[in-house]
Amino acid sequence: MNETDGRRQRGERARAQVLEHATAIASTDGLEGLTIGRVATDAGVGKGNIQVLFGDKETLQLATLDAGVVHYRAKVVEPALALESPLARLRALTDGWFDYVASGASPGGCFVCAASYEYRARPGPIQDRVRGHRESVRARFRETITAAKAAGELRADVDVDQLVFEIESFRSNANVAFLMGDMAVFERARRSTQARIDAALA
Amino acid sequence: MNETDGRRQRGERARAQVLEHATAIASTDGLEGLTIGRVATDAGVGKGNIQVLFGDKETLQLATLDAGVVHYRAKVVEPALALESPLARLRALTDGWFDYVASGASPGGCFVCAASYEYRARPGPIQDRVRGHRESVRARFRETITAAKAAGELRADVDVDQLVFEIESFRSNANVAFLMGDMAVFERARRSTQARIDAALA
Repeated sequence: MNETDGRRQRGERARAQVLEHATAIASTDGLEGLTIGRVATDAGVGKGNIQVLFGDKETLQLATLDAGVVHYRAKVVEPALALESPLARLRALTDGWFDYVASGASPGGCFVCAASYEYRARPGPIQDRVRGHRESVRARFRETITAAKAAGELRADVDVDQLVFEIESFRSNANVAFLMGDMAVFERARRSTQARIDAALA
Repeated sequence: MNETDGRRQRGERARAQVLEHATAIASTDGLEGLTIGRVATDAGVGKGNIQVLFGDKETLQLATLDAGVVHYRAKVVEPALALESPLARLRALTDGWFDYVASGASPGGCFVCAASYEYRARPGPIQDRVRGHRESVRARFRETITAAKAAGELRADVDVDQLVFEIESFRSNANVAFLMGDMAVFERARRSTQARIDAALA
């Protein structure tokens, strides 16, 4: 390994370490809770290093939002999409979200939901990024449900947009319920999601 | 009017004026965006006056949260509850929420929803108050649906908790959609709520 590669590897490790602390802070205190000073203290690195690795605060916030999404994708989305049957993918995508939130992997609940609220009145790159993540979640559900219809696993007359909307709605309610410690509503949301999919079975 | 009454009236007017500015700030920037200095500047009163009227920051935040709820109650809940038929009350409570949010009366969307996120990881009096407001919304729906069943307007076999959960879920999704400018999803949530109630008609 030459010197440049070694430097790059060290940089990537440092970046990953900083982002782990940054996502933990942002999960409970929001992306606005991220300051270069606080992240530096928590991650045990110098403020100058954070600036070298991430530039300004907004770049750090965007990288943290993306890191949260990447973590969720690795734990839930990628294993789900590796399944052969579109219906199995749909079940894994929906149930996996409940398992992920319940596991406390993200103590502040769904990162994209929280950021939607946090940036509700602050147009700019972070709000745009949040909107992009929301749209890709929705597109993934649409594709999976459409594929399950094409495979004859879901009925041909299932209204794709309505089913996506209902899955999203139950998730949205479940997330707030989780944050408020209302696990009965959280589990009702999980059951209701499964019931909606069951009702759409071919 | 004696001197004490005059002072009390002036105090109440000043309080109302401050709370109007405080709810406007909190609607978009959250209850944590409220500082005594900022509210004083926006309301055009001295910081000392705010402290006399509200005490500390947390008391101001609690009063602001309550003022948002009181405004919504006056505009939506009270007119709805004045209707004679429980079904008409249910329709006014559900549709009224969509009208209220769409009107921009609260530019940051549902106040209680936003505060649920903001205080997700901060136990204390504000989180407790948020939980209390959420519980009273739910209790109101339960009572109204139960009354509509008793009046023979909704079917006797309607699952009250499930219907309340679905109304809440669509509202939760609609609120984020509104914040993200996604009015197609917002209107789908309104139609879906009406459809759920229609499906429960006796």
